[in-house]
Amino acid sequence: MAAQTVANTTNSVNLGPAAALSCRECGHRVPLGPVFACEECFGPLEIAYDFSDYDTEELRKRIEAGPANIWRYAPLLPVPADVAEKPNLNPGWTKLVKADNLARELGVTGGLYVKDDSGNPTHSFKDRVVAQALEAARVFGFTTLSCSSTGNLAGAVGAAAARAGLRSCVFIPHDLEQGKIVMAAVYGGDLVGIEGNYDDVNRFCSELIGDPAGEGWGFVNVNLRPYYAEGSKTLAYEIAEQLGWRLPDQIVVPIASGSQLTKIDKGLQELIRLGLVEDRPYKIFGAQAEGCSPVSVAFKSGHDVVRPQKPDTIAKSLAIGNPADGPYVLDIARRTGGAVEDVNDEQIVDAIKLLARTEGIFAETAGGVTVGVTRKLVENGVLDPAKSTVVLNTGDGLKTLDAVAGTGLTATIRPTLDSFREAGLA
Amino acid sequence: MAAQTVANTTNSVNLGPAAALSCRECGHRVPLGPVFACEECFGPLEIAYDFSDYDTEELRKRIEAGPANIWRYAPLLPVPADVAEKPNLNPGWTKLVKADNLARELGVTGGLYVKDDSGNPTHSFKDRVVAQALEAARVFGFTTLSCSSTGNLAGAVGAAAARAGLRSCVFIPHDLEQGKIVMAAVYGGDLVGIEGNYDDVNRFCSELIGDPAGEGWGFVNVNLRPYYAEGSKTLAYEIAEQLGWRLPDQIVVPIASGSQLTKIDKGLQELIRLGLVEDRPYKIFGAQAEGCSPVSVAFKSGHDVVRPQKPDTIAKSLAIGNPADGPYVLDIARRTGGAVEDVNDEQIVDAIKLLARTEGIFAETAGGVTVGVTRKLVENGVLDPAKSTVVLNTGDGLKTLDAVAGTGLTATIRPTLDSFREAGLA
Repeated sequence: MAAQTVANTTNSVNLGPAAALSCRECGHRVPLGPVFACEECFGPLEIAYDFSDYDTEELRKRIEAGPANIWRYAPLLPVPADVAEKPNLNPGWTKLVKADNLARELGVTGGLYVKDDSGNPTHSFKDRVVAQALEAARVFGFTTLSCSSTGNLAGAVGAAAARAGLRSCVFIPHDLEQGKIVMAAVYGGDLVGIEGNYDDVNRFCSELIGDPAGEGWGFVNVNLRPYYAEGSKTLAYEIAEQLGWRLPDQIVVPIASGSQLTKIDKGLQELIRLGLVEDRPYKIFGAQAEGCSPVSVAFKSGHDVVRPQKPDTIAKSLAIGNPADGPYVLDIARRTGGAVEDVNDEQIVDAIKLLARTEGIFAETAGGVTVGVTRKLVENGVLDPAKSTVVLNTGDGLKTLDAVAGTGLTATIRPTLDSFREAGLA
Repeated sequence: MAAQTVANTTNSVNLGPAAALSCRECGHRVPLGPVFACEECFGPLEIAYDFSDYDTEELRKRIEAGPANIWRYAPLLPVPADVAEKPNLNPGWTKLVKADNLARELGVTGGLYVKDDSGNPTHSFKDRVVAQALEAARVFGFTTLSCSSTGNLAGAVGAAAARAGLRSCVFIPHDLEQGKIVMAAVYGGDLVGIEGNYDDVNRFCSELIGDPAGEGWGFVNVNLRPYYAEGSKTLAYEIAEQLGWRLPDQIVVPIASGSQLTKIDKGLQELIRLGLVEDRPYKIFGAQAEGCSPVSVAFKSGHDVVRPQKPDTIAKSLAIGNPADGPYVLDIARRTGGAVEDVNDEQIVDAIKLLARTEGIFAETAGGVTVGVTRKLVENGVLDPAKSTVVLNTGDGLKTLDAVAGTGLTATIRPTLDSFREAGLA
């Protein structure tokens, strides 16, 4: 059996240190390929690596001498060694902002940082994951890059495919807001509206993968998902390197499918295993919107099973009612001594404004969720204010302007000094 | 007289290598302070530097070891040496994208690059200039950061002041679109609507500076303008360093007031003088929208005087009908062997889409102007396609979504494979 497993994982696909796909449930290994579910138990497949011949200090030097984007970590990702030479959007190496003003407001004294992924090329963390899927698509010979999406992912796929010279075809619910359609359509790929809701779009994409009509198509979040998901590890790598190769004590991560949180944990574990950071405890906290809080509800109830919800929240980029990685998130929060918490729409809006007025960072609703949850966790005594804390902002406020549409003018005056003085602004 | 000038420039203001303010018209020098017009001839004041004790290779090493933002060039900017330690947005070091797909479409063979300033914290080049004004404001003891604006600048000032812990008060025409008001208001500073047009707003700001009510106020683009404007030099520094300390043969820059183009030239000249790049010819091309093309019209007519226009173009961030630096732009275009050209609104939109579908970069209308003008200059044989060319994108398409609002779905289908096949998308 062991011999057979090894034989299975030997293949000629050049994706750097990626050695095989391994089932997260039963451990069954298969060769690298465009598959995402275990043939034995239907569990999710993820990348298994061979890092065995890395020397810690050589690796550290190689990373530090690398480009100012995610490809500095190419030795730890499922990508060819020459990935940085290929046309792609080169996302990552976004700012880790020391947020002293916000820290004062929240009463955090141990150092508070915002990892601001609005600095990515299409202004969300999705550029990180799509960049991995793109390399897998090239290696597997796919000529069309595709996905189902309701927002950030559509733009990230459209832009990445355009730059790489691949065709893109993105599927969205046909009645999406015009602004979101424009943001996705501008890159010139095919953008197809599906008469139905997001579930219908997903179901259709799964059918298309199994049909001859979908031949040559790489769906970044379906048949390329094991590669795609690894992109979130780069958030962990960057945070640790930007802290001076040190683990934060606490990290607050948004939960949509839960994939990002599990990969950040995977990334931190790899850094420890490779000796790039000191092995010390860290706590991972998950953040949800109250209107889509299946993992938070399960965490608080002490359940291992996540009960699906019908989402109703302004945090649309987190509105996945049946999060595939929910149970793994529960495991990680409990194992590390973290927690999962949620905030309501009003608290999300307040937190967006708080972050903007303290640090000049205009976050997407998902950033309002993480900042709002951080505030709540401090108030409830769950998050230790004396320890170092990193909060993720995974998107850009320009994409969710509606959330803060109530924000407006302080005053309206005539263009005279008298009118100015009357308004009490001097 | 010479002795007096030297005495005048000796002062204790700590703004790094900035030595004095010097009139661009008559050369009269005054000490560093919050003034912008020459007391002798009313000409514009600009920063004069003392770079005399720099060793070229030491300077290069110091820059290369600096942070991945504009402060790597602190030795060449009017800022204190410890500027990187202070809370600010750390803009700059944005991507210089090798645009091979776009080059193929335009027939450029000598290397085409897009300097993509949408990667800045508030997604426009304004973060570069506001960051300089902020340091000057701190040094001069201003407690309120202010400006008149109709867009990008409002957000940049609001965000920078928030992060720095200063008050901000931004003046805009009261009837601006709601989206733009939200983008500026979210940072929590005062946002004041003026009953009148942009000219009324500017006139009011000038009055306020002379009034006791405006005491302690730094207007980034008025009384702090000499400092503010220097921020655009960093575009030149970054382009040269990112090209491997080499001057591009040709560079295409948008023209609003014209300040940015003149400072890019100043920056390139400094690099030559300091020995950081080889002294070889470069050409600077200015880009305007046809609906606001006073400099382009003057250039083509062979005039030295720029005749004001009433702007009517979708490129609102460039819609300055009476550009203060217009004559200097004409000088530079002619001296370097460049040109000034314009494109109409349809060509701007086409160019935005062209850049998006070739390189995955979603530009503001100003980026549509530079890309459109580049295309036109190649077609007309004015720009040499066999030489290296850098095109600036100074803003983000998310802020001017209306310009491409016509972009939409390729097809709308039912969620079935039959419907998909019928649409001819396979």
